[in-house]
This record gives sequence, structure tokens and C-alpha cells, in this order.
Amino acid sequence: MASMTEKRFHTPREAETAFYAAFIKRDVDAMMAVWAENDSISCVHPLGKIVTGRAAVRDSWESIFRNSPEMQFMITERSRTQNGEIAVHVVEENIRTKSEPPSAPVQVTNIYRLTETGWRMIVHHASPASQPQKPESKTLH
Amino acid sequence: MASMTEKRFHTPREAETAFYAAFIKRDVDAMMAVWAENDSISCVHPLGKIVTGRAAVRDSWESIFRNSPEMQFMITERSRTQNGEIAVHVVEENIRTKSEPPSAPVQVTNIYRLTETGWRMIVHHASPASQPQKPESKTLH
Repeated sequence: MASMTEKRFHTPREAETAFYAAFIKRDVDAMMAVWAENDSISCVHPLGKIVTGRAAVRDSWESIFRNSPEMQFMITERSRTQNGEIAVHVVEENIRTKSEPPSAPVQVTNIYRLTETGWRMIVHHASPASQPQKPESKTLH
Repeated sequence: MASMTEKRFHTPREAETAFYAAFIKRDVDAMMAVWAENDSISCVHPLGKIVTGRAAVRDSWESIFRNSPEMQFMITERSRTQNGEIAVHVVEENIRTKSEPPSAPVQVTNIYRLTETGWRMIVHHASPASQPQKPESKTLH
């Protein structure tokens, strides 16, 4: 087990800031410190299938961080809902790298929950916005 | 204004059942009766951009219903979280039609909120799971 930074996030926004900081640093421990300590967490990466549970979510980030270049994020918030213990942030990620042309913006739903150890992520659902010219994989909805 | 069925959904699951019933019937009024009556609702259709607000969400469903054939849904629940007023369902949709070959499963985050008129949808985020052989639109994350 890698040692985890036991940070306490006092607001959903603090957790979100830590999420993107971990993403930019490609730091799996920092990333997993943002996620809730329970196995009903779930994560959908662009064009990926739903990944559930801490072990699988960790593996998925390790694989992404291994394969991704240095990135910069521009995050635009599109909608935010919060009640006592759950917060939903719908955002658009515009990702830039030094070497690659700009990619399509990524549409994201981030969900946080207030746990005993502060606000933690429970869902990250990311999908590319790109209307293909000629759809090669049929999508009906 | 079309007349709306003023159904009250007593649980998130009742709202979800009504959501897929409206989807199968391609009934925009029934669909919008599932969504919360406020403009922070948001919807991401597969490969689409975030759509926010009732008017835009309604338009998006009208456009989908106009262009889609008769469909059958098989829904597999992958994770469910609920606190007092917000419920998060992460599900996989397998969609079948009479005329088309099976499409890639759709990965979905559905979020419901307890409002004065019962449980209503506030977020629907759907994305196709398909790892393209050769990515034509670069996605970095």
C-alpha cells in the first residue's frame, strides 16, 4: 500500500481542485486520496466502460497516467447542485498538451459525497464531445 | 405548452422506470415530466456536449426521438448511492432495435433529486463504450 496523503477536503470544490491537481501531476496516490473509501465508487473514462470499486478505479488511473503526456486543463463549470451530503458538478474539460493538437472537449459529471473524512469523489463520468462525420460505431441514443 | 402528466415519483427507481418508459415510447412530454422543474438540469447524450436547462434538454430529446427507431432497453445497474435528497444510479444500457445490429453498450450516470413534486431527474450523462481501433478524434483522458 502506498502511503496516502490524508487530506481533508472541506468543500466539494476543494476535492475537485485536488482531483485536477492529481490528474495534472499524474499522481495515483493523490488521485485515490480524493476518492471515497468505499467500493461503490465508479468511474467512466472517455469511450470506456464503467469501472467500479477502488482497486479497479486505481488501476484505470494508473493506466491513464502511464500513457498520457503532460497536460493542462481548462475547466468550465456548466452546472452545480448540492444538498447536505452530495454535490454534483457538471463541467467541461479542455485539455491541452505541449505536443498534441487540441482535442475535443470532454464532458464530465463529477459527484462528491460528504464522508467521515471530508468531501470525497464517488463518481467521475467523462465522455468526448465529437459528432463523428460518419459514425463507425452505431449509437442509438 | 403541452399538457404534462403530473405524476409523482415516490422513489428514484420509480422516476428511472418512467424515464426509460418515456424513452421507449419516444414521448417528449412523458420524458420532461421525469426531469426536475428547474434550469440547472443537465444532459449529455452519447458523443454530445452538455445540454443545460429545460428548453434545451427538451429540444435534445425531441431531436433524438425524431431520429430513432423503435428500441428495447436492457438496463444493468452498476452502482447506486442515495442520501436524503439525491440519488445516483450508474447503469449500463444495452439497446436493441428490430432492424439494426446490437450497438455498443451505453454507460450512464442518472441523478435524481427529491423535489416538492417527488423524485425527479437532474442529470443524465450517457456515453458509448467503444474503444476505437484507430482513434480519429484524440482523447487525452
